Amino acid sequence: MTFSTTVITLYPEMFPGPLGASLAGRAMERGDWSLDTVQLRDFATDKHRTVDDTPAGGGAGMVLKADVLGAAIDHARSLSPDAPVLAMTPRGKPVSQARIRELAAGPGVTLLCGRFEGFDERIFDGREVEEVSLGDIVLSGGEPAAIAILDACIRLLPGVMGAPTSGIEESFENGLLEYPQFTRPQEWEGRTIPEVLRSGDHAKIAAWRKARSEHDTRLRRPDLWERHTGARDQSASGARHETKED
Amino acid sequence: MTFSTTVITLYPEMFPGPLGASLAGRAMERGDWSLDTVQLRDFATDKHRTVDDTPAGGGAGMVLKADVLGAAIDHARSLSPDAPVLAMTPRGKPVSQARIRELAAGPGVTLLCGRFEGFDERIFDGREVEEVSLGDIVLSGGEPAAIAILDACIRLLPGVMGAPTSGIEESFENGLLEYPQFTRPQEWEGRTIPEVLRSGDHAKIAAWRKARSEHDTRLRRPDLWERHTGARDQSASGARHETKED
Repeated sequence: MTFSTTVITLYPEMFPGPLGASLAGRAMERGDWSLDTVQLRDFATDKHRTVDDTPAGGGAGMVLKADVLGAAIDHARSLSPDAPVLAMTPRGKPVSQARIRELAAGPGVTLLCGRFEGFDERIFDGREVEEVSLGDIVLSGGEPAAIAILDACIRLLPGVMGAPTSGIEESFENGLLEYPQFTRPQEWEGRTIPEVLRSGDHAKIAAWRKARSEHDTRLRRPDLWERHTGARDQSASGARHETKED
Repeated sequence: MTFSTTVITLYPEMFPGPLGASLAGRAMERGDWSLDTVQLRDFATDKHRTVDDTPAGGGAGMVLKADVLGAAIDHARSLSPDAPVLAMTPRGKPVSQARIRELAAGPGVTLLCGRFEGFDERIFDGREVEEVSLGDIVLSGGEPAAIAILDACIRLLPGVMGAPTSGIEESFENGLLEYPQFTRPQEWEGRTIPEVLRSGDHAKIAAWRKARSEHDTRLRRPDLWERHTGARDQSASGARHETKED
């Protein structure tokens, strides 16, 4: 089954961009995923093809018009009726690896890219659109975020990654950062690979990796660590009632 | 002054990609920023041009070799000696808008993109490299993250954004999400622009926007809200000693 992606943008020429090469590019050639771009400007209704206007109440920049956005979303929905629509905006919910996994298991995704000062807020009342943010930085438009989200989905599609196990022990998949990795040469500039990794003792290696994973998460990402230990405590007390996908 | 960017990657053809169009593309043509790509494979030392090897201790995937990475970083450093080197990795510190602002104010940036299972950890001891993460999702490689980080830097370069004020009231710049925006038409599908924004009363508009900004941050991003109110409390008690850039 082909994972159908649609991107609503003022810059269709930015796609597939980096997704045309490497893993995603080969997956596209095989038909594992498809890409449609929708030019937002095609849904303007005046002869100047206006997509934006000044912010109500004043201020710098321009705001994308609700009527134009609505028509473009309706068109995208006609191309891919079952795909959720995600708007790229720093006001959105930070996208998680769990959400990426859900999206990748579905029929596809439609991504709405803004520019300027953003979207007329009424679009989020008038259409079913999920506001998502990639990270706490501000981009010139949603396009780079859309590329990152598509990349994260595509690599999870069946058959795309070389080794099917390589998704399991990664950062975020179990709520922790991944343990550090090492490879040959055995010694580089006086630095050696940790002894335990050369021991051949699989139980010891697993224990070392788990400990490093926990240590690094606690140190580098206290936010993830807090969530992880909170979930563990809840689970231990039998009070965990979240919906979990398998 | 030109902002010098260097990307170390196995896929130089992914660049400039989307950064060749729109705002970043025009800024590149004007010489506001420049881009060098460094092919990691050029620094392999064997005749097969090997850049990776199996993980020490076992496991799926391949790990980028420290010797190859070290040589590539040394070369990038020779191209742009004063630019900080950032490695794109989910094990890194989430990149913040404050860090983007610092980078954009500097001479440039070198971005190291991984693939496969990541980097031999010794590279982070042996070279001065900042490990950064774009968000809590796993990509097929660092390239989409590098594009997003470059985009975020480029838009802040002098002269790149149309209106110089439009960076100030944005999401994250004051530790809060931006307030919602509206524009004409006055009524869309029965939904009207909030009355206050049409009042012409600038003080009332500013108060409404501040309240919405705080409300939405509290509701959507309790993590940001907690940091914001914590910083405010510290500031009020005179206990704030952080270094702040202007």
